[in-house]
Amino acid sequence: MNLKDYVTVVPDYPKEGITFKDITTIMDNGKAYKHATDEIVKYAKELDTDIIVGPEARGFIIGCPVAYALEIGFAPVRKPGKLPRETVSVDYDLEYGQDTLTIHKDAIKPGQRVLIVDDLLATGGTIGATIALVEKLGGIVVGCAFIIELSYLNGRDKLKGYDMRALITY
Amino acid sequence: MNLKDYVTVVPDYPKEGITFKDITTIMDNGKAYKHATDEIVKYAKELDTDIIVGPEARGFIIGCPVAYALEIGFAPVRKPGKLPRETVSVDYDLEYGQDTLTIHKDAIKPGQRVLIVDDLLATGGTIGATIALVEKLGGIVVGCAFIIELSYLNGRDKLKGYDMRALITY
Repeated sequence: MNLKDYVTVVPDYPKEGITFKDITTIMDNGKAYKHATDEIVKYAKELDTDIIVGPEARGFIIGCPVAYALEIGFAPVRKPGKLPRETVSVDYDLEYGQDTLTIHKDAIKPGQRVLIVDDLLATGGTIGATIALVEKLGGIVVGCAFIIELSYLNGRDKLKGYDMRALITY
Repeated sequence: MNLKDYVTVVPDYPKEGITFKDITTIMDNGKAYKHATDEIVKYAKELDTDIIVGPEARGFIIGCPVAYALEIGFAPVRKPGKLPRETVSVDYDLEYGQDTLTIHKDAIKPGQRVLIVDDLLATGGTIGATIALVEKLGGIVVGCAFIIELSYLNGRDKLKGYDMRALITY
C-alpha cells in the first residue's frame, strides 16, 4: 500500500503559501489507518517500548491505536489547563511567540521506555518539548514515530541523538 | 476487571465544587485501556458499525483504537478552524454561552452506520451536536459509546431515540 496516495494535499492552509498535508483521509479509510498503525507498531516492537506518548490532538489519533495493539499504555501531552492532576510543563518557541505543553507528573515512571508518536514532523518544536517532558519524568525516549516528515523543515537536526521513523517523507 | 478502580476522582476540577472523573489512569495502564477498548469494540460489532466518529480530544483517545481493532475508519469532530478542508458545523449550548463543532464534509458517506465514541456522557451537549453533524452528512447514528456516564446529569434524556452504552456509571 502506498500511504502517500491517502494523504490529501490542501493548498493555502492554515494560511496562504502553506501546503497542508491532511492525514484525515488516511484515518477515515480503515485499511490505510490499519496499515499506518501497524507500521508504527512494528517500529515500537523493535524498540521494546513500554508506553506511548502523544501530543494533542493528532498525536492521539496515531498513538492510541499503537498503544492498544501493543497492549501498553498511552500518556497524553496537552496544552496547559487540560490535564486535571499535577503536571510538569515545558515552554517552546513557535514561529511567532511561545507555547507550553504539559504531562501528568505520574504519567511516566522513571526508566520506562517511551515511544513518542505524532502525525507530522515539521520544525520539531512540539516533539522537542514532548521529549523534554518525558525526560523530566525520568522516561527514556527510545524513538519518535510520525506518519509524515517534512524533511525540508529540518526537524531532525533539532532532535539529533534520537531515533526517528516517518512513514512518508516530503 | 473493574474499570472504575482505574478512574481517578479529582475534586474541584475544572472549578470548585465539580468532581472530575479522570480517565488518563485507564489509558496509561495497558490492561485497563485494552479492556475498555474491547468492550466498546464488542458493542460496535453488535451494531454492524461502518465508521467511528469521535469529538476532540478525549474522543480520539477512546474512538481511535476501536476503529483500528475493527479495521474501519475514524472521522474526527473538531473545534472550528482545526480541519483543513470543507466542513459542516453545528452550534450548541454550553452552561454559559455557545460552542461550535465541525466535521469534514466528506468524512461520512450517506447511509454509513456510525458509532459515536467519547470518554464521558455528561449533559449530552457535545454528543447531541456530534449526532447532528453525522446526520447532516446522511450518516446513520447506530449508537453512542462512553467510558463514563454521569447519569445524574440526565444526558440520555437529551439523546432519546439513540442507543447508548457506558462502561461505568456514576
